Amino acid sequence: MGIDPGLARMGYGVIREQAGKWKLVDCGTLTSAAGEAVEKRFVVLFEGLTEVVRKNKPQAIAVEQLFFSRNVTTGMVVSQARGLAILVAGLAGIPVFEYRPVEVKQAVTGYGQADKKQVQRMVKLLLGLTEAPKPDDTADALAVALTHAQAGTGEWLKRLQENRKQVPD
Amino acid sequence: MGIDPGLARMGYGVIREQAGKWKLVDCGTLTSAAGEAVEKRFVVLFEGLTEVVRKNKPQAIAVEQLFFSRNVTTGMVVSQARGLAILVAGLAGIPVFEYRPVEVKQAVTGYGQADKKQVQRMVKLLLGLTEAPKPDDTADALAVALTHAQAGTGEWLKRLQENRKQVPD
Repeated sequence: MGIDPGLARMGYGVIREQAGKWKLVDCGTLTSAAGEAVEKRFVVLFEGLTEVVRKNKPQAIAVEQLFFSRNVTTGMVVSQARGLAILVAGLAGIPVFEYRPVEVKQAVTGYGQADKKQVQRMVKLLLGLTEAPKPDDTADALAVALTHAQAGTGEWLKRLQENRKQVPD
Repeated sequence: MGIDPGLARMGYGVIREQAGKWKLVDCGTLTSAAGEAVEKRFVVLFEGLTEVVRKNKPQAIAVEQLFFSRNVTTGMVVSQARGLAILVAGLAGIPVFEYRPVEVKQAVTGYGQADKKQVQRMVKLLLGLTEAPKPDDTADALAVALTHAQAGTGEWLKRLQENRKQVPD
């Protein structure tokens, strides 16, 4: 499961391996109303994410990690929302993995400076969808999930190669 | 109740009005082990804070708000921890109030550029304690609680004056 954290919009995407391919299981974007008190908005997102996790029981949760933000206040708010996502994972006993935007772009498109459109096109292709998921937050969450899936595959391949080395030719 | 948010150390302080003075009810600093996975540390802090809130049933929760940080990564982590504190308040149905460090210093010492020692001395004096609470995180949380208490008093005084205006001399 991938999460693109935010206070107004929290994107999530759940994928599953099936016959060697990654398939879409569930995705969407949780929203909280701008006019509400921040503590009430947090409760809405916390309960929504908890329900998505309860329903899908993911093996791992990958969260987009923001290192820098042009707007400091936005960065702080996104960090608070990311804290919520990490807590939901912790309460469910699911390990968390964090990926920077450049890692997500690199993993999904092969190019760390890819734009949103390129990421969306690759998410659509990699999951065999007829169209790119909407809104952007949902597509981004699926991209983070795919990043972790590929990191997992990479790790697995590396271990396989290391095991092979131990087998005499 | 005041909270000084952090991942390694989360300070909290609960105060209550008694005969026109603010008295210490409960205070301390919750900690999470640096070696643990971040999602497990969040669960430790979440459960600890939830227990403090359940025990003390505060009418309001005041949280120190960080606008800028010299270290962006530290700022992000503190923001995540602040998100936890706000969520705990929201789940308990308690309103959250946020104060900037300069507002806390101004409210407690009368000087927005006061140092940690001055803040601690005033927390000790205002609560009639025999010594300043330790560690710094606990003292800071009490300072935030006192800031909200004084803001509350100010609001109350203002309303009182407005009501007076409506009474003809």
